[in-house]
Amino acid sequence: MTAAPHDAFAPGDPRGRPELRRALTDYLARTRGVRTGPDRIVICSGFGHALRLLFPAVLPGPLAVESYGLAFHRQLLTAAGIHTAPLPLDEHGARTAELASLDDVRAALLTPAHQFPTGVPLHPDRRTAAVNWARTSGSYLIEDDYDGEFRYDRKPVGALQGLDPERIIHIGSVSKSLSPAVRLGWMVLPARLVDPVLAAKGEREAWASVTDQLTLADFLTHGSYDRHVRRMRQRYRRRRDRLIEAVHAHAPHLRLSGIAAGLHAVLQLPDGATASDERTALRAARWQGLALDGLSDYRHPDATMPPRHGLVVGYATPTESAFPAALEALCRALPPAA
Amino acid sequence: MTAAPHDAFAPGDPRGRPELRRALTDYLARTRGVRTGPDRIVICSGFGHALRLLFPAVLPGPLAVESYGLAFHRQLLTAAGIHTAPLPLDEHGARTAELASLDDVRAALLTPAHQFPTGVPLHPDRRTAAVNWARTSGSYLIEDDYDGEFRYDRKPVGALQGLDPERIIHIGSVSKSLSPAVRLGWMVLPARLVDPVLAAKGEREAWASVTDQLTLADFLTHGSYDRHVRRMRQRYRRRRDRLIEAVHAHAPHLRLSGIAAGLHAVLQLPDGATASDERTALRAARWQGLALDGLSDYRHPDATMPPRHGLVVGYATPTESAFPAALEALCRALPPAA
Repeated sequence: MTAAPHDAFAPGDPRGRPELRRALTDYLARTRGVRTGPDRIVICSGFGHALRLLFPAVLPGPLAVESYGLAFHRQLLTAAGIHTAPLPLDEHGARTAELASLDDVRAALLTPAHQFPTGVPLHPDRRTAAVNWARTSGSYLIEDDYDGEFRYDRKPVGALQGLDPERIIHIGSVSKSLSPAVRLGWMVLPARLVDPVLAAKGEREAWASVTDQLTLADFLTHGSYDRHVRRMRQRYRRRRDRLIEAVHAHAPHLRLSGIAAGLHAVLQLPDGATASDERTALRAARWQGLALDGLSDYRHPDATMPPRHGLVVGYATPTESAFPAALEALCRALPPAA
Repeated sequence: MTAAPHDAFAPGDPRGRPELRRALTDYLARTRGVRTGPDRIVICSGFGHALRLLFPAVLPGPLAVESYGLAFHRQLLTAAGIHTAPLPLDEHGARTAELASLDDVRAALLTPAHQFPTGVPLHPDRRTAAVNWARTSGSYLIEDDYDGEFRYDRKPVGALQGLDPERIIHIGSVSKSLSPAVRLGWMVLPARLVDPVLAAKGEREAWASVTDQLTLADFLTHGSYDRHVRRMRQRYRRRRDRLIEAVHAHAPHLRLSGIAAGLHAVLQLPDGATASDERTALRAARWQGLALDGLSDYRHPDATMPPRHGLVVGYATPTESAFPAALEALCRALPPAA
């Protein structure tokens, strides 16, 4: 507060504080391979706010989305009058080659680093196919980089945005790295979309707290954010390793997927499992006091791909002291071998 | 941060943090005569956000507004598809007896404590007339209490909301008391409007920073906010007194109005002044490096009342050290006697 310039507390640039946009430019280039500049970053209050700014004011519908994804995002788009068309998924991520067959679609929302919730990274060929579709059809890709900073095993998966900054809208936030209660996110925009997004935002409504913006800028610039992410990545990796060990020991018939990154994994039910089996497993978890979701909760209502059944296990939320008990409860709830 | 409960950093109640809603309940009752409870307060990011939540999702148009007011609010309403109907003003404030003659209008937006920008408080008879209209027609009053805390001379003008909490939506923010860069405001709602407003807000988008919310709650609860407002009120009163003295000494033919409260006064041009005279006076101010507005900038395009001409002089913005020079510049720019 004492170091903040006097003008920081007047109504400011609707893009957000320049200190934060400069710090994000450096940080995203270094950690995610994002190619941008401070003038093409717009600060917002999170991913939902970014979607509200884009649709319908900046981009028209319909919008391609992944067949499994957050219902909250689909509902927000529906409320904005935007039709969503589901893209099938497989073990390589979204089948982006099928984008061209979706009628009238001029934008696609993807989670390339770690498909949410199934957990696979988008295959390099699929990334190329998505970018080529956007270029040839004059469409936009919206990259939801919700947990790109938390990768454990393999070498980093860079942001899709680096492949074509004029066709890809990259959106991130501190919801996973710090807290969803800190309402701070960012949109990295193609040059021609900056003015339309600012018009949708409104000159006078900056939305995001300037004190939070200046704090995050400082946190980024002085390396504290990097240290925090590194520390949390180690902590989450340990939790993930313990989850893998526990499942292997108590239910070797079950497979965990999506474990290379992120704050959740999917406990896949055996082949042939049904929606009813998933509901039974969720009920068993609830009995143990665990709030898990089933994959069915994330399925797009119009999806045509074969259904998948499994439990989405988030392992970041419990406090460090509560985690062992939560893991034991999960082991008691695991579905037995058929 | 260290005192905040663990759940504060998870997605929370879309109404906002309970600590802040409890603190505001006490504070608004004590200082503004607002009658409410924590469950009927919804935290938002400022007045503009409140209007966006209300229109068109919760209240239909058309909406009565004062003939002079913020163009930003009118534009925001127009963008939301809401027609605004101007209510005439006189030396007693908005002519609320005329609300009944406005076709189809089911809500009115008022600045009762200190009309913006002309500066008069709404006369007690006009307050009663507005509330009676709302009751008999089943309409709502929206009270923009933008600077209710900064009253200098007379005894406090309580919030209109105390007259009928079921018909009046009271909206305040910290934009004048702390900074517009702290994106925090509050809506005090009639019971039956709470759920519709929360539905418009969306379960997952709390918008306002939780760290800012907890900080303000603490600030209010421990009396620091009261001390800050008291200190700033003294500072602004001194500035206002110096402004009155300066105008009296340099331009005794000009009258300052709206000086009993707030962070601005209106320097009225002499009777018979025209829009052209106002533009000339504004140009002279600009030559002196002053960014003033003319009353014409605030006039509703459909207003039928006789036009008023004058300069809106905000005296809160300059730093304490820059204020004397700003006041001297104003004196050099004052229009000469005819």
